Amino acid sequence: MAAQDNSDIEALIALMAKLPGLGPRSARRAVLHLIRKRALVLTPLADAMSRVAETARECLNCGNVGTSDICALCEDETRANGELCVVEDVADLWAMERAGVFKGRYHVLGGTLSALDAIGPEDLRIPRLVDRVSTEGVSEVILALNATIDGQTTAHYIADQLSGRVKLTSLAQGVPIGGELDYLDDGTISAALRARKEI
Amino acid sequence: MAAQDNSDIEALIALMAKLPGLGPRSARRAVLHLIRKRALVLTPLADAMSRVAETARECLNCGNVGTSDICALCEDETRANGELCVVEDVADLWAMERAGVFKGRYHVLGGTLSALDAIGPEDLRIPRLVDRVSTEGVSEVILALNATIDGQTTAHYIADQLSGRVKLTSLAQGVPIGGELDYLDDGTISAALRARKEI
Repeated sequence: MAAQDNSDIEALIALMAKLPGLGPRSARRAVLHLIRKRALVLTPLADAMSRVAETARECLNCGNVGTSDICALCEDETRANGELCVVEDVADLWAMERAGVFKGRYHVLGGTLSALDAIGPEDLRIPRLVDRVSTEGVSEVILALNATIDGQTTAHYIADQLSGRVKLTSLAQGVPIGGELDYLDDGTISAALRARKEI
Repeated sequence: MAAQDNSDIEALIALMAKLPGLGPRSARRAVLHLIRKRALVLTPLADAMSRVAETARECLNCGNVGTSDICALCEDETRANGELCVVEDVADLWAMERAGVFKGRYHVLGGTLSALDAIGPEDLRIPRLVDRVSTEGVSEVILALNATIDGQTTAHYIADQLSGRVKLTSLAQGVPIGGELDYLDDGTISAALRARKEI
């Protein structure tokens, strides 16, 4: 791209290349595609981005992203069934919602405790979680944190903070649907065996 | 994403998912990343897209994309050295420019001839190419078309149109730099053997 008049296009490629899942090469492909379909894709995409840049915000209550200060899930009274699902970030909340089985409310921590990265409870939404448990009439807190070291450390910390005040549960661990034993790691197989159930 | 107030965000995800290289899942990841870094990434990206949507256009002469009616490569008099490189699309032009060895001008066809898709010479920029060869004092036309069936069909057609009027060359075929014979297809090895050179 030696063309000197392409600075706008090059700037766009550089910005696109920073998105997760895209590199310089795929960003170039995407931008060429956008330029070829200017009217059909590029203009609507630019408009959608401007709109989201203006309106998107984090829910003050649970940390979900939405277009209002209190998100639709927190506004929805039918979801105030006493169950509160604690997730690491918004992507996890969306994954839970796609599964479509949880009918309660969420609490998005915004990360995990991490001594290495100096992320403490105040940097996450843990104080707010403790607060919600007392004020929102929560009867059960479901810890749906990732099964990683940091995720489980965070789960332990939260369990410690809330113990005795509310029923605490965590997602079951075991063989994923469609999973083959041969490809599963030892830890998952041990967990699935320990949690075996009568049929 | 059951949240009803997220229509802007969902619209953005749907648009992003249409980009080449992104699917629904990676589009969600990218949009979440954008929302998290609103000020730093989303707003500049939206602005860059609006700018490109307004200014990007195809060069009337060669078909390259740029921000003016005649692109920088066609404006540049030092590139009028009589060599004209014919490529399939703008991505190929950019790839040639990255290699940085070609100092002449380009002609972007905008596709290949294809009987199946009913793409004829008039749908590409072939008449314009024939025209440029006579008017721009071109001494050599380098056919840098992809080594696919459609690319080679197009190369044959162009060679037929221009034969006798200008020197015609095509890119060499052979072992790619860093390539291992063991992993090369038979066609490439045959081509490399036929075009072997003394050392």
